[in-house]
Amino acid sequence: MKNYTSINDIDNINSWIEEAKKIKANPLANKGLGKDKTLGLLFFNSSLRTRLSTQKAALNLGMNPIVMNVSGDAWGIEFGDGTVMNGNTAEHIKEAAAVVSQYCDIIAVRAFPSLTDKEKDESEHVLKSFVKFASVPIVSMESATGHPLQGLTDAITISENTTKKKPRVVLSWAPHIKTLPHAVGNSFVEAMQKMDVDFVITNPEGYNLSPEITKNTPIFHNQSAAFRNADFVYTKNWSSYDDYGKILKVDKDWMITKDKIGDAKFMHCLPVRRNVVVEDAVLNSDSSLVIEQANNRTFAAQLVLKKILESL
Amino acid sequence: MKNYTSINDIDNINSWIEEAKKIKANPLANKGLGKDKTLGLLFFNSSLRTRLSTQKAALNLGMNPIVMNVSGDAWGIEFGDGTVMNGNTAEHIKEAAAVVSQYCDIIAVRAFPSLTDKEKDESEHVLKSFVKFASVPIVSMESATGHPLQGLTDAITISENTTKKKPRVVLSWAPHIKTLPHAVGNSFVEAMQKMDVDFVITNPEGYNLSPEITKNTPIFHNQSAAFRNADFVYTKNWSSYDDYGKILKVDKDWMITKDKIGDAKFMHCLPVRRNVVVEDAVLNSDSSLVIEQANNRTFAAQLVLKKILESL
Amino acid sequence: MKNYTSINDIDNINSWIEEAKKIKANPLANKGLGKDKTLGLLFFNSSLRTRLSTQKAALNLGMNPIVMNVSGDAWGIEFGDGTVMNGNTAEHIKEAAAVVSQYCDIIAVRAFPSLTDKEKDESEHVLKSFVKFASVPIVSMESATGHPLQGLTDAITISENTTKKKPRVVLSWAPHIKTLPHAVGNSFVEAMQKMDVDFVITNPEGYNLSPEITKNTPIFHNQSAAFRNADFVYTKNWSSYDDYGKILKVDKDWMITKDKIGDAKFMHCLPVRRNVVVEDAVLNSDSSLVIEQANNRTFAAQLVLKKILESL
Repeated sequence: MKNYTSINDIDNINSWIEEAKKIKANPLANKGLGKDKTLGLLFFNSSLRTRLSTQKAALNLGMNPIVMNVSGDAWGIEFGDGTVMNGNTAEHIKEAAAVVSQYCDIIAVRAFPSLTDKEKDESEHVLKSFVKFASVPIVSMESATGHPLQGLTDAITISENTTKKKPRVVLSWAPHIKTLPHAVGNSFVEAMQKMDVDFVITNPEGYNLSPEITKNTPIFHNQSAAFRNADFVYTKNWSSYDDYGKILKVDKDWMITKDKIGDAKFMHCLPVRRNVVVEDAVLNSDSSLVIEQANNRTFAAQLVLKKILESL
Repeated sequence: MKNYTSINDIDNINSWIEEAKKIKANPLANKGLGKDKTLGLLFFNSSLRTRLSTQKAALNLGMNPIVMNVSGDAWGIEFGDGTVMNGNTAEHIKEAAAVVSQYCDIIAVRAFPSLTDKEKDESEHVLKSFVKFASVPIVSMESATGHPLQGLTDAITISENTTKKKPRVVLSWAPHIKTLPHAVGNSFVEAMQKMDVDFVITNPEGYNLSPEITKNTPIFHNQSAAFRNADFVYTKNWSSYDDYGKILKVDKDWMITKDKIGDAKFMHCLPVRRNVVVEDAVLNSDSSLVIEQANNRTFAAQLVLKKILESL
Repeated sequence: MKNYTSINDIDNINSWIEEAKKIKANPLANKGLGKDKTLGLLFFNSSLRTRLSTQKAALNLGMNPIVMNVSGDAWGIEFGDGTVMNGNTAEHIKEAAAVVSQYCDIIAVRAFPSLTDKEKDESEHVLKSFVKFASVPIVSMESATGHPLQGLTDAITISENTTKKKPRVVLSWAPHIKTLPHAVGNSFVEAMQKMDVDFVITNPEGYNLSPEITKNTPIFHNQSAAFRNADFVYTKNWSSYDDYGKILKVDKDWMITKDKIGDAKFMHCLPVRRNVVVEDAVLNSDSSLVIEQANNRTFAAQLVLKKILESL
């Protein structure tokens, strides 16, 4: 595998899940694989789980992680082609990506969308520029339109926790006060579409994700209908896709409660705003898988890094 | 030992000091102990000595340190119970602490007090929330009311440098232009109360530390009387405890000078404002132990980490 | 070697270049040399290449790098002698340098000039204070007046890429919208003066570098005359030295173009503003050595660290 920038880079999700479980059972088994190899972690945005779990994964493989907060530690980066750089950006991605490739055997990048310019966000200009101009493999630690390490994590977590051959999995939109990206929702949809699950999405009208992502997945605008017989309720807020980046007027009834989801397992990528997205009673209950999801972030990242290291 | 959050976690200060001296004599003797173990260092506030010495201690034990500036690198953390999180905080400590526990074998935390809300500060809500919600041991790198790695360091340094069986140790308040916490003073008091020293405190009226900390330790409001026959003068500014977090009008005569302390050894946790807290002549003299204290920070941290690693 | 703070610390540039080439051919050959040794990297300013390449060099030698952004992570540092520290600085360099020396076997420092106070900048008060007050070796990662790791890198890169016994090397000033330091220019001049090259400088009137640096090196105010028969064109902007730190009115004709430099190799330390300093056509061509320079930063740093480690 060269790069890991999308759930579509997973050739066989079931075999990936099985391999991730083996890594989880014995995380240090491949500690020689990354010896004297460096992972550069470049953050254009904040990160807690991704920052720590990806470093941990690298350490488990014997790699040396080097972390950089691009904005604070270095220079403003220019992505435009042919730009006369007499503004705020001091280094072009052509140089930046090529230069970092001199020091790192793999580069992991986090770059959130603007949520103001749909076309630019969907072009994935930051992530794709790294892929284009770096000479080493690129791993997405969440880009404008996807969070494939999270999506892989979620697939692993559902596989570990299901008691049925084909569980019913519901992705539910929930309220939030900030304008949030579609990346986690998108990658979760793509991951579920690859798995043998009964998968539906529920969100208010106006909040449908991109039809190029959702494809034939059923979308319910009635949350309680969607939750019927749910085994897993995956929750996430996102801003409107159609009215791009907007928070539409929507009542707070979409918050996830214990009453609504019953015995279904609750999942969320975190961070989560308590009593806005989901009530305390759900997060504090045994039905919540959020901490196990966080734990599995390490093994998803470790699987991806392992596959890349093996093909270097 | 599970956590190290207070000088009161030291069961026998003399045996700890002896063990720290052994570590200092041979810092790499236990390099296998921390193999494949990760120390997460979470900073809610600035740090120089603590940041470097705790990493160095971890490296000496073979651990992998991972550093995070919580405010800059990640999300605002909510500590309230039952809060509807529709404000500036994006992640609850319940999740944050449990999540970081998935990646780190030990978590070290620095979180300063507000110095505006005495009750909240004394509740140690940040540190205690980590203890409560993390599933791994917690080490304080300075909390609202204590700096136990510093207090242990200071005990080691006094033990190394005393020429008497029972030296006279004076903790002296000194002037400062900023509102400073009581943490270092508190932990020093608690450490001295456990040692076989002749210990007194001197500070202006209105600047007494919490009586629950000072207990029966004599407090002099006359600095020169306190300094008589002193072997060690430990200096630190703190804001008023009674008039909580206030800087009271006090003349500059409390600055430490060579004239005042004579041949007594001078100690300070650093950083120190020269010619405000203490004059150059003292810091530049052989009587100053401040650099040796900084050095001993490594071995105090290493002792604490060693004890925790041994009980994992 | 004790410290590396200037190109003048290179005793024999040809033997250094040869040793750097050997390191580049086998970067892990000396991985035992830095075992259990710590490199502290202290940044007072932004950094990408230096940050990553110096860490990579340390890792190649088996060292543990610890990175600190001094301004953001710690306290304001005071450099004045005898200052009454009742202002914004909280820690004196006397303590800071001595303290960091307790945790690090080598300290690398980046501290840019003010470009407003020539005398202060030329005194190199930050770098020299570290040299004076630290008890361990100091490496400059760019100071007010020099960038000796870059200068060494450039010497290596020219040696690798020349096809002639004595190539013609031209250092050319180029336009920029920001007030930039003289450090890279200075160290390049000093490095070239030590090599067997035909070296000239070209810059507009008013932009001559310090005569104490340029000495007898010819300076052309006519760029095209300087470029005649050039084998290497090294480009860098700097603000005026005579009218210290000012950007003088100068037309944009000084931008480097393919037309101007023909087949000469193009060099720049990066970051570079495209189509301001140099046009795309040059950077995108095979004549550009900028990425190879970035790569050689690792081996220059590794050579310096190796020499220091060998003499510890």
